[in-house]
Amino acid sequence: MNDAPDPQDEKPGIDNDAADSAQVITPALIAQIVGAVGDKDLHAVRRTIEELHPADAADLLEQLPSDAFKGAIELLDHYLPGETVTELADDVRADALDILSDSGIAAMTEKLDSDDASFILNDLDEDRRAEILAKVSASDRAAIETSLSFDEESAGRLMQRDFVAAPVFWTVGQTIDHLRSVDEDDLPDTFFDIYAVDPGFRLQGTVSLSMILRSSRETTLKQIMKEAAVSIRPEMDQEEVAYVFQQYNLASAPVVDEAGRLTGMITVDDMVDVIQEENREDLLALSGVSEAGVNQSVLSAVKARLPWLAATLIAAFLASTVVALFEATIDQIVALAILMPVVAGLCGNAGSQSLAVAVRAIAERDLEGPLVARAVRREIFTALANGVIIAVLSGIVTWLWFSDAWLGVVIGGALVSTFVWAGLVGILAPLILKRMGVDPAVASGVFVLTSIDLMGFFVFLGLATVVLL
Amino acid sequence: MNDAPDPQDEKPGIDNDAADSAQVITPALIAQIVGAVGDKDLHAVRRTIEELHPADAADLLEQLPSDAFKGAIELLDHYLPGETVTELADDVRADALDILSDSGIAAMTEKLDSDDASFILNDLDEDRRAEILAKVSASDRAAIETSLSFDEESAGRLMQRDFVAAPVFWTVGQTIDHLRSVDEDDLPDTFFDIYAVDPGFRLQGTVSLSMILRSSRETTLKQIMKEAAVSIRPEMDQEEVAYVFQQYNLASAPVVDEAGRLTGMITVDDMVDVIQEENREDLLALSGVSEAGVNQSVLSAVKARLPWLAATLIAAFLASTVVALFEATIDQIVALAILMPVVAGLCGNAGSQSLAVAVRAIAERDLEGPLVARAVRREIFTALANGVIIAVLSGIVTWLWFSDAWLGVVIGGALVSTFVWAGLVGILAPLILKRMGVDPAVASGVFVLTSIDLMGFFVFLGLATVVLL
Repeated sequence: MNDAPDPQDEKPGIDNDAADSAQVITPALIAQIVGAVGDKDLHAVRRTIEELHPADAADLLEQLPSDAFKGAIELLDHYLPGETVTELADDVRADALDILSDSGIAAMTEKLDSDDASFILNDLDEDRRAEILAKVSASDRAAIETSLSFDEESAGRLMQRDFVAAPVFWTVGQTIDHLRSVDEDDLPDTFFDIYAVDPGFRLQGTVSLSMILRSSRETTLKQIMKEAAVSIRPEMDQEEVAYVFQQYNLASAPVVDEAGRLTGMITVDDMVDVIQEENREDLLALSGVSEAGVNQSVLSAVKARLPWLAATLIAAFLASTVVALFEATIDQIVALAILMPVVAGLCGNAGSQSLAVAVRAIAERDLEGPLVARAVRREIFTALANGVIIAVLSGIVTWLWFSDAWLGVVIGGALVSTFVWAGLVGILAPLILKRMGVDPAVASGVFVLTSIDLMGFFVFLGLATVVLL
Repeated sequence: MNDAPDPQDEKPGIDNDAADSAQVITPALIAQIVGAVGDKDLHAVRRTIEELHPADAADLLEQLPSDAFKGAIELLDHYLPGETVTELADDVRADALDILSDSGIAAMTEKLDSDDASFILNDLDEDRRAEILAKVSASDRAAIETSLSFDEESAGRLMQRDFVAAPVFWTVGQTIDHLRSVDEDDLPDTFFDIYAVDPGFRLQGTVSLSMILRSSRETTLKQIMKEAAVSIRPEMDQEEVAYVFQQYNLASAPVVDEAGRLTGMITVDDMVDVIQEENREDLLALSGVSEAGVNQSVLSAVKARLPWLAATLIAAFLASTVVALFEATIDQIVALAILMPVVAGLCGNAGSQSLAVAVRAIAERDLEGPLVARAVRREIFTALANGVIIAVLSGIVTWLWFSDAWLGVVIGGALVSTFVWAGLVGILAPLILKRMGVDPAVASGVFVLTSIDLMGFFVFLGLATVVLL
């Protein structure tokens, strides 16, 4: 993980794997803030939190014991910076909002961009949100309510309403003069592009700040602007937006309404978070977990996993009924029971390989157009090749173990055919689910693995019944 | 995936799930370029490729049938833009480089930033790389060789040597005037920050371009610069760098050497690629795949999966030997063989849940300091809670199915204890592997699942032997 820890950051007393150069949350710092919270020393707690980058302050709060965390949030209340709250992990943020006063949250949201404010308020129930919004200034309230009116994972939610637009006929000089004269509060904290608009506020093009800086004062925006490769609409799904950012290496992107009018701006830092979130969801879903978090409670961990286990329960008993069909065969040849884990383990593994490759390729949009047929073909041939190799090895081991060549043939035959099935269903299930509008990462797992188990046991025990009895 | 397809991009004849607003590669476009390649019409092929964004051009090339792909690359050679080559998927890029002439690749690298040039040359074997570098101008060659001297997944490889630095005492006015006067080729294509340095070229701080633009001409860089939260060294692992970008919402970051001298710049678009790559690796590794790609050949897919299958083969036969220990018991109670898939399926699922949560938390650095103990405790209690619920359900189903209450007790007891084991090993194995410096996503899977299988069968069949016989 960490080849070159920066010596200046290596703190004594930290075990080695934690001593990376980005390590700012030390046990000493945690002890210090726990002490200050115990003393109800608001000044000391504020100073510690404010001296840290909001992201580090959030990490510190996450690592506090739960009573110290509660104490710190209660103590800070109005003084807890909104930027820190947005950086908290979902479950920790929910806990913090439960503790904060309504007026504390209202004060916080007024200082944030509308996208961050709506991000925080989104976690609250409707009544509390209304009470808090009543305490916010009318203009901020309107901006937050507009943001909340968009779907949760849409571009409209992610966009901020602070951005810099300039008439397309303006010169670089005029633009710079304008930026220098305008009130600080009316500009976004950071921006990378200026959007050139026509008199109807319809987006004409994007000018990067580096282009502004390297161009002469007389150059017009029209001369140096670039047209957007793809226009982002507020309704667009965040996964789609993230794809556009990746594909075109964007730092920020304008959001336009139906009429092409500029309505907001999305920045790459939010997209990095979306990419991480989507990746986390896919990885967890493939292993049967709906949600996970730093300080997730046991109850919510149970809730996030139990439905998948229940689905597996049904699937597993289904597989058992297939085995039960061959009760008589197993009764005569107990070696079959002994070898069942080999069939289940290997075929399950082949299926999850194929499934992971397909889910990932769909997420990265590598399974489109003519690439689909090619990928399906590759999965079949790969399954066949791996199946033959693994079948031969397993067959030989089985033969030697049980001194029964035919038993080796049975397990080999079962493995080859189930491998091909695993490869096929591993790629087709996610493709079909995607076409049905279902998230392939979430829905494929149990389905694919169950069908492989059923197939594996059926072929293995069926073949054994035919060949060995 | 796509809630709001942009009507203007919806092409007739494309099936619905492909018709998203970012869809620029249409079957018609593919047919057109295949035709042009067939006619050896260099002009038409060049025009199509050059009119597309490099990322889209790369997608188009990836989707061509392999003979048309080969023909297109041969035809283009010197005219294939380097930016398109860098956007190709790894396996496709390797194919393209095999087809391209040495002088074609040399011409391409001269036009690219040093990080992109070394990225392309890195795929080639040493002899060919030396031949190509001999055709490149001395200064470019030196920059590429320096870049290649860093480890493959290090900051040194990712950084570009084109960046904008200015003396810390310069004013905003001086800086802008300098940018306007300097030769276009000496500036990076896009940049987001200007690095303020002292006379020894040691980094003092970073000034975002938006800060430059909103400040008056007399302001000095010193007044508006921000100190870096973390300094990035060329040896730093790319995963670490990506973490710094995410944690501090960076658009670009300076890279400094031991003496604090500015040596390069890393931009967020490269970090987005790194994040995707690391996520892809983790997701695939958890499912037992080392590598996957759009146009991966069957041979390389077999290579990427066979070692994991071989490990599973050993693990599965190990599980079989545990079952074999209880041959006599199974011989008397064939219901045990029928229920084995239930034990294996459910406990395996519980283990992979715990494993996925831990691997993801480690990747996101959520398992640090006091959070480790808390997470382990959560896993144990979650496993216990889910184990009890699933055990009761399974026990009842078993009791009803086989009219044997004690058999229900046996499977229930085996499930609860193996669930706790699965939860424990699912989180501890990745933590221990990480501490040993091994990638937890890669190494945990087989280990965790094997130990769960062994435990599950042993407890289930052992308990059955004791209780039922």
